[in-house]
Amino acid sequence: MGGRDLSRINIGLMGLGVVGSGVARILTEKADWYATQVGRPLVLRRALVRDLNKPRQVELPRELLTTDPREILDDDEVHLVIEVMGGEHPAYEYVREALLRGKYVVTANKEVMAKHGPELLDAAREAHVDVLYEASVGGGIPLIAPLKRDLLANAMTSVRAIINGTTNYILTQMSREGWDFDRALQQAQALGYAEPDPTNDVEGLDAAYKIALLASLAFHTHVHPDDVYHEGITRLAARDFRYARELGYAIKLLAMAERSNHGVQVRVHPALIPEDQPLAKVEGVYNAVELTGDLLDRVLFQGPGAGSLPTTSAVVADVIDVALSIIRGVSDRLTWRGDLMLPVRPIADLTTRYYLRLVVPDRAGVLAQIAGCFGRNEISIASVIQKETHEEDQTAELVIMTHRSLEANMQRALRQLAELPVVREVGTFLRVEG
Amino acid sequence: MGGRDLSRINIGLMGLGVVGSGVARILTEKADWYATQVGRPLVLRRALVRDLNKPRQVELPRELLTTDPREILDDDEVHLVIEVMGGEHPAYEYVREALLRGKYVVTANKEVMAKHGPELLDAAREAHVDVLYEASVGGGIPLIAPLKRDLLANAMTSVRAIINGTTNYILTQMSREGWDFDRALQQAQALGYAEPDPTNDVEGLDAAYKIALLASLAFHTHVHPDDVYHEGITRLAARDFRYARELGYAIKLLAMAERSNHGVQVRVHPALIPEDQPLAKVEGVYNAVELTGDLLDRVLFQGPGAGSLPTTSAVVADVIDVALSIIRGVSDRLTWRGDLMLPVRPIADLTTRYYLRLVVPDRAGVLAQIAGCFGRNEISIASVIQKETHEEDQTAELVIMTHRSLEANMQRALRQLAELPVVREVGTFLRVEG
Repeated sequence: MGGRDLSRINIGLMGLGVVGSGVARILTEKADWYATQVGRPLVLRRALVRDLNKPRQVELPRELLTTDPREILDDDEVHLVIEVMGGEHPAYEYVREALLRGKYVVTANKEVMAKHGPELLDAAREAHVDVLYEASVGGGIPLIAPLKRDLLANAMTSVRAIINGTTNYILTQMSREGWDFDRALQQAQALGYAEPDPTNDVEGLDAAYKIALLASLAFHTHVHPDDVYHEGITRLAARDFRYARELGYAIKLLAMAERSNHGVQVRVHPALIPEDQPLAKVEGVYNAVELTGDLLDRVLFQGPGAGSLPTTSAVVADVIDVALSIIRGVSDRLTWRGDLMLPVRPIADLTTRYYLRLVVPDRAGVLAQIAGCFGRNEISIASVIQKETHEEDQTAELVIMTHRSLEANMQRALRQLAELPVVREVGTFLRVEG
Repeated sequence: MGGRDLSRINIGLMGLGVVGSGVARILTEKADWYATQVGRPLVLRRALVRDLNKPRQVELPRELLTTDPREILDDDEVHLVIEVMGGEHPAYEYVREALLRGKYVVTANKEVMAKHGPELLDAAREAHVDVLYEASVGGGIPLIAPLKRDLLANAMTSVRAIINGTTNYILTQMSREGWDFDRALQQAQALGYAEPDPTNDVEGLDAAYKIALLASLAFHTHVHPDDVYHEGITRLAARDFRYARELGYAIKLLAMAERSNHGVQVRVHPALIPEDQPLAKVEGVYNAVELTGDLLDRVLFQGPGAGSLPTTSAVVADVIDVALSIIRGVSDRLTWRGDLMLPVRPIADLTTRYYLRLVVPDRAGVLAQIAGCFGRNEISIASVIQKETHEEDQTAELVIMTHRSLEANMQRALRQLAELPVVREVGTFLRVEG
């Protein structure tokens, strides 16, 4: 960066959607304040868009807009690239090239950082710049900087998080209103909380990217999102929430990472949580992350996990930090290293408690056969409750809670239960956490 | 610092009590890991104690111990001083001298930083070093670094916190067990959660230091602890918790700071909070801080607010950060500035809702006189509930909730009520927040 004019920090903004418009607007509206904080003006020099004529939530001078990424990447006067396009391609290629050309990068892109983080962090280090990505997880909630700095004295042992606002909103409505999944999803879509194609959210992929990032930071390793076990929320029934509540639990889509002697276990799935735990009380589109370390016990961070302005809050904090690094000619400020190569354990190795809902004939001897199946698979039943009986087809619904058991055994038992003539339907199967 | 040997970072530790012992033990036990993170070993070179022969929770080689502060302050090989002595004097003088002599400082001292922060931050800047103090508020919960960095894009509007574990434990027990203050205090003392002289905690002084620090950071100003209005919890009665619960509230010792156009309002007092708010659910010795900004809405940080290891977590995070600054020859890394000179508004300017418990004769006409007093002072009553009647002395207890009113008016009304012949006793008076 030597020799360049640093009397102002020139920014190339890539993407002018919901987040990009917020960033552009706030950088403009608060320009004086940020200049005071940094000591130099932060100047928006160019904004990359797909369509020059599309109406936007922010008014920018026409000459700032471009459809050509080269006008940012080839411009030596651009010190800093903000990437808020989303999606893997071409965002990954742009971020990579920006770093290789000695530009600092601030990105909100969870997919790019989860899949390509190690390569991009290495590229930044070699080019003596930085890539910061606070906005990629948890919107406005500080999570990445705390893991990289404030909690660094700890050996972290677990991360448990509600980090997808769309699914938490849907689950909150299913629980509160007694709605089924489809109705709750439709409402979430009508309110703009869910995409027209909600797959990434409801199948747990979005949460898998985010927990891969948090687990990598917490455990100083690299967890690739492909190694994150994930299950979505589409198969939950309204009555599961009722049964869970009767047992003293809430149902949440949890993203979890645990450190053990043998590696890390990283997973996303709906789970029962005791209703007196803080995570059970996180409602609507809010996010919360609970971090456990050897020194500090548990800390909980909670706040708005998405939205234009909360995400802008995180992006601009990174921008101010980077601007300071540019001015002082430093990089790779944070000491965090991700060089422990910890294996990611398969879900079959998990040991936890389980909730299982089964539909069976309402007659004697049925429970003995089911209990026998559990017993043969070394699973100890903690309680069985007969919930509802349907007189017309003479069936009953059983809710079974197990003691701590091995997932591999539980999966084998589920397959065997499905084959038992007395099991009409294997309903919802959920892990119990905490 | 130029010319000095930086192949290792030499630390002078001042104070070897509960926190100091934790810091010394963890720096020793995790020396290899921290050396990997920093790139150089962190070496404990000297520890200042009052009594060389006192038994301690940590085993240190005898030659490391000294009773002479000069052996740390005069030692040019000490790069970094950790001050965990507590109390204003002589900690303030030691921190000041260390900075003036070009040593970086990490301190856990809320009193010193609340009273002398601006002078010490200036001294650090002039000497091209830093003074970090994450451990001074909220134990292991990251609060100061997030305010200095992660939330910097926001104009913060409020801080609401439970930041004194002793009083939160006492209030939790009073609420859960129906105990009076004295009994709950005795139990807290027996468990080591309260000091033999609990004044600083139960009168709200400790919380006043901490909210002064948080308010200064959030609003880029300096709030002196003398300007923080504070009320303690000693006058609360067990039945206030019962009445509050019936009305849907919890009672907590809240530390609050709010930004208005005219300045800041900073205060510590017990308050009613709606029981569905996150702060109402923070129990026992836990701390929680809720920050509101213009971009990110609300974020909540929750965790262990005290204790040897959580505090060590914060101290060592600062130490690692400072070690990196020393190695790279940088200082004053964080862009945060406290140069807005905002006036602190008197409590008389506050507008909020109020809870008041009165003992009155159980007869007709009483309420009219009380309501008249409120009316003359421009206070609108929201509800009056007659709680208990005592047949023997023919008195009744009234719980009055007001609409939003000016504190000055409320205080005048309280003085006038105390003079009314029909008021036997002005019981608990509490502000209602949220």
